[in-house]
Amino acid sequence: MNYKMMGKFIAQILIVEAAFMLPAAFISLGRGEYTAMYSFFASIGITAAVSLILFLLCKGAPSAFYAKEGLVCVGVSWIALSLFGCLPFWLSREIPAFIDAFFEMVSGFTTTGASIVPEVEKLSYGILYWRSFSHWLGGMGVLVFLLAFTGDAGKGFTLHLLRAESPGPDVGKLVPKMRTTASILYVIYIGMTVLNIIFLLFGKMSLFEAVCTAFGTAGTGGFGIKNDSLSSFSPYIQNVTTVFMILFGVNFSCYYLLLLHQFKSVFKDQELRMYLGIIVGAIVLIALDIRGMYGSLGETVRHAAFQVGSIITTTGYCTVDFDLWPSFSRTILLCLMVVGACAGSTGGGLKVARMMLLMKGLRRNTRQMLNPRKVQVIRSNNSVVSEKVLANTNAYLAAYVVIIVVVFLIISLDGYSIGTNFSAVICTFNNIGPGFEAVGPMCNFAGYSPLSKFVLSLGMLAGRLEIFPILVLFSRSTWKR
Amino acid sequence: MNYKMMGKFIAQILIVEAAFMLPAAFISLGRGEYTAMYSFFASIGITAAVSLILFLLCKGAPSAFYAKEGLVCVGVSWIALSLFGCLPFWLSREIPAFIDAFFEMVSGFTTTGASIVPEVEKLSYGILYWRSFSHWLGGMGVLVFLLAFTGDAGKGFTLHLLRAESPGPDVGKLVPKMRTTASILYVIYIGMTVLNIIFLLFGKMSLFEAVCTAFGTAGTGGFGIKNDSLSSFSPYIQNVTTVFMILFGVNFSCYYLLLLHQFKSVFKDQELRMYLGIIVGAIVLIALDIRGMYGSLGETVRHAAFQVGSIITTTGYCTVDFDLWPSFSRTILLCLMVVGACAGSTGGGLKVARMMLLMKGLRRNTRQMLNPRKVQVIRSNNSVVSEKVLANTNAYLAAYVVIIVVVFLIISLDGYSIGTNFSAVICTFNNIGPGFEAVGPMCNFAGYSPLSKFVLSLGMLAGRLEIFPILVLFSRSTWKR
Repeated sequence: MNYKMMGKFIAQILIVEAAFMLPAAFISLGRGEYTAMYSFFASIGITAAVSLILFLLCKGAPSAFYAKEGLVCVGVSWIALSLFGCLPFWLSREIPAFIDAFFEMVSGFTTTGASIVPEVEKLSYGILYWRSFSHWLGGMGVLVFLLAFTGDAGKGFTLHLLRAESPGPDVGKLVPKMRTTASILYVIYIGMTVLNIIFLLFGKMSLFEAVCTAFGTAGTGGFGIKNDSLSSFSPYIQNVTTVFMILFGVNFSCYYLLLLHQFKSVFKDQELRMYLGIIVGAIVLIALDIRGMYGSLGETVRHAAFQVGSIITTTGYCTVDFDLWPSFSRTILLCLMVVGACAGSTGGGLKVARMMLLMKGLRRNTRQMLNPRKVQVIRSNNSVVSEKVLANTNAYLAAYVVIIVVVFLIISLDGYSIGTNFSAVICTFNNIGPGFEAVGPMCNFAGYSPLSKFVLSLGMLAGRLEIFPILVLFSRSTWKR
Repeated sequence: MNYKMMGKFIAQILIVEAAFMLPAAFISLGRGEYTAMYSFFASIGITAAVSLILFLLCKGAPSAFYAKEGLVCVGVSWIALSLFGCLPFWLSREIPAFIDAFFEMVSGFTTTGASIVPEVEKLSYGILYWRSFSHWLGGMGVLVFLLAFTGDAGKGFTLHLLRAESPGPDVGKLVPKMRTTASILYVIYIGMTVLNIIFLLFGKMSLFEAVCTAFGTAGTGGFGIKNDSLSSFSPYIQNVTTVFMILFGVNFSCYYLLLLHQFKSVFKDQELRMYLGIIVGAIVLIALDIRGMYGSLGETVRHAAFQVGSIITTTGYCTVDFDLWPSFSRTILLCLMVVGACAGSTGGGLKVARMMLLMKGLRRNTRQMLNPRKVQVIRSNNSVVSEKVLANTNAYLAAYVVIIVVVFLIISLDGYSIGTNFSAVICTFNNIGPGFEAVGPMCNFAGYSPLSKFVLSLGMLAGRLEIFPILVLFSRSTWKR
């Protein structure tokens, strides 16, 4: 392990984070929220100071990077980001316990949206902005942003970094140069976010509300600015959010291809088709299941579509308390939590592409058993999927299941019901936010013990970073000289 | 698909089943339960008649067997066994609905022990015997028994058959000849069952009670003969059952090695060590968690040990209502349900050997990510595990998860809570029996709809036969000419 290189990298990350806190500080200043403002400036000072010390300590670090350093750096950076990012919550006493502040910040950066705040409306504007902004930053990948911003950190490293931070089984290189790829992705991301804000402003939202809501939508995060999430906003606002949530759950390469006018390859993309197919199917089944619970067919479909879009993209906004829905609808939502959004989007979960590979693999294995001598290959978008990719996907599922079991076991110490604990694990690890029962959409995670909050935080990080960057931190071989 | 060969095979299976019903018929006769007796004789007649017709229809079928026929035969045979085996339940009106009778019989043969009978003590002796005997038969494998009994059914077929029916990732060939292997396994099985009965008789159980209890223990089934399972029996009986449940969860090859005086290789067997380690660990954790709930430390440990032994071996007997235990203990039990017993035992679940491979694979993959250029191999009992075995294990987990999700989704239509449904799926698919909440140890599966009962039955069969023999029945390529 090259600690100096890691230190230098984290110093870069922290200085960028300090800079990103500035807008929140000014919002607090503008709103006359002086406690919050001082907390932001104090946090900026601390973060910048630590960054400077790290820079001085790690001067002259080599710039050659290996897979190991790349992977570990990603895990450690995200933890560092959350540790310093939660300082404003804690210093302002708006979230008095440090572990709660840490949980909230991890939930923000990982775009989970699980909250320990009982009444969101009591938070100051600066803090609300910082919570929502963390979603936006975490959605596309903080380190990818850094990459686009400061340039390549070292040869070979960029690819390791992008691989480790980007969701999905396969990182598509849009253009040969990684830095350019990162920039293109961020330009699309910013453009779509601005479009979302404009649509929300048309619905008579205030600019602050529109920006915060769009941040949560774009990052598929889900921190709201109202206690009841989006329930009290107009149907127009809800429908706009439904559409944008679903759009942000699409693989961003599709948008790049659209910009290049390659409509055919987007239209034929198997993952996109399956993603939209699942959404439509789930909306129909849920609408049938909850018929009669709401006034009209239109309202029923609106709520069904909003919740399906919110859950499959792992956003976690809600317009109704879906924990009151019948078992069948709740189970569909629970399954969607696991499926997740498309690879290469800002959403979490297993990813539709992985689900597709798992299903195709299962089908192939069944056929292989019937005809052991016939070689059977799996295709995706007309190209053969290598056995290595398939093996990795299955191995990923194994890691996924093992982590769920371990977290599930630890948080059960707190005594909640099996249903609550199971949904708590599923909805944090898949970066959704609200779950069912005691962690349902109208409840929060405040009741869990500090140990559980810490373990759930690690789970959120593991989910967002696709497990291995966090898992390696627990491996002895990582810390061996 | 060679239907004639399949028909001939099923004819053989059915005639054996008809013969096995005879003792139950005579027990009914001896106890003066004439309705039950007539039902048994009628069932025997029907089963034998169908068998005869199949024989005549499929005369002259070729004896050459391929993997496909072997796999499909196993799945279809088990379904046929359950369909004809449930006739006595249904004809005697002791279980009035056919789907309930089918569920109960599948639960018996798959050694699940999940029941739809609200009051077991109201059942007649003959029916009780047949329920318990089905566990004993299903535990070692009905078809394996046939193999030992009637001789090799065809070249190559025996291996396919044993592979498809035997639990665990790898079928160890004890001796070169399959038929001999099957016979050795059955001799050990019968010997241990007799030993268990003798121990129970020493505890002043009646012969009938001892035989039925031993059948449920040996097959790791769990159908009881009392409404409260083993709660009202003496601590001695409970402790004897704990020990024997754990013994029947051990890979039977270990006993064969013991007979050959190869103590060292048994002692060093990694799966056995892990299995016993998990048991001891779970007992300690649960005893700590439920301390104070029972009178003395001895009683606490007795109940903890019984329930742990019962659940990890997927038996499903109980001495207390463990659904009243704290969340942590219940979650440990839920995890043990998934882990299951050793490969090559009569128990179900994922199997300890598979869990071990999954964990080792996860560790290897993490290390591989840290050092992509270094080739890392996985060892089990000092020999290198091939990548193929590892890939198959991961693929098995994928199939396992997919089936759980599908069954979970379908039974959620009935409106039970997520906790109930989840535990119902886990404890039928892993062949345990009782779960939590509405399907807890003091409740039963009677409340589910016919559709759910059917799907759960398929789940039990898939769990017992390690998924693929049932999965192929749903594959189009199976039924293609």
